[in-house]
Amino acid sequence: MKKVIDLTLPIIVGHWRYSNQRRPVHTIAEGAASNVTYFDLQTHMFTHIDAPKHVVADGKTLDDFPLDRLIGKAAVLDVSYVKPNQGIHEKDLSAAYQKCEKADIILVKTSWGLQRDWTTKEFWDDAPYITEDGAAFLLSISPKVVGYDFPQDYDIRRLRTVDEHECDLITHRYLLKNEILMVEYMTNMWEITGDNVEFIGLPLKLDHTDGAQIRCVALEER
Amino acid sequence: MKKVIDLTLPIIVGHWRYSNQRRPVHTIAEGAASNVTYFDLQTHMFTHIDAPKHVVADGKTLDDFPLDRLIGKAAVLDVSYVKPNQGIHEKDLSAAYQKCEKADIILVKTSWGLQRDWTTKEFWDDAPYITEDGAAFLLSISPKVVGYDFPQDYDIRRLRTVDEHECDLITHRYLLKNEILMVEYMTNMWEITGDNVEFIGLPLKLDHTDGAQIRCVALEER
Repeated sequence: MKKVIDLTLPIIVGHWRYSNQRRPVHTIAEGAASNVTYFDLQTHMFTHIDAPKHVVADGKTLDDFPLDRLIGKAAVLDVSYVKPNQGIHEKDLSAAYQKCEKADIILVKTSWGLQRDWTTKEFWDDAPYITEDGAAFLLSISPKVVGYDFPQDYDIRRLRTVDEHECDLITHRYLLKNEILMVEYMTNMWEITGDNVEFIGLPLKLDHTDGAQIRCVALEER
Repeated sequence: MKKVIDLTLPIIVGHWRYSNQRRPVHTIAEGAASNVTYFDLQTHMFTHIDAPKHVVADGKTLDDFPLDRLIGKAAVLDVSYVKPNQGIHEKDLSAAYQKCEKADIILVKTSWGLQRDWTTKEFWDDAPYITEDGAAFLLSISPKVVGYDFPQDYDIRRLRTVDEHECDLITHRYLLKNEILMVEYMTNMWEITGDNVEFIGLPLKLDHTDGAQIRCVALEER
């Protein structure tokens, strides 16, 4: 029997970082025959997948990648020992990777959600981050997808205070620009016990977009 | 090697039945450092899952069901021989079901998308539909999830011309009110060759809602 671990943040209303809305279209309580809900989002809110078009003007969209790329064996690079504001270097990632069987999907596991609550600013402002040599290492092992359970680029925290052009989003530059899909802001990786899991990520099927919310699970034998 | 069959309609803009929008938040072409897209939806547009709260004022939401209910073996009830405006009766469904191994997930396969284009009104107005004895049969086999690749209730076509209270949405009444989750408006079931498949459906993780878009796949050995 496999345990299903949901790696996805809930899409809530009122998160400080996001301006999404939700309201009833009509409700049974108010006399309609059914409940229907309106909502809006942007493509990079909550747990989501980045397509290269996010950072390349005419880059590939989600439609340009086969869905089976997001289904299969993942290597779980466990660096949960990292402290707030600590860089995750090549040596950290390569040591973790050596414990895993090779896989096209890489999950970088910090369990950061246990150190800071994802509904607070500190989840972003105090986060550990992947260094330039760490990103170069991830590129060197040629994954098809890399997922993270923390704001993986140091400058993500600076996006709200400085011009985006002044920010260097290192994994975006090393990986996404090289057409490696990235899944950002996953959670619950602390429930994964092994160094490899079966991963399934199914994105919202928005046509031709730069990204989309994605529901991700890990399946693990228990 | 398993083939991944995507059972999900794309979320497009401009479909006659839906009023959803999409627009850039900012674009690289216009000087930003990244492309980000805004979009909106309602919970029952395109391929989606219904929670009981859709038809019961204080019914259960998607949060009230474990995610593993949407991952597992499905029985594919193939009634692709049905003609436009033809009822799908108990005898049709039970004959198809007898070819399958038992499963908690039922897919009713009409391949209706081959007879009518889902972007046209005729996809709704000419659809085959599940009769009352057909819905009673589906209830009798106690599935946890039932999915359809066609507008499965005759009166779905009447929703835009008469008051919703005048419509009898039979599968909603028989199944959804009995806490059997329903996945509506799937597609591509004609690519499924067997009577059983491995099904995975991962919904958008909107908290406490009456439904949500869901990305569904069938995995089939090839």
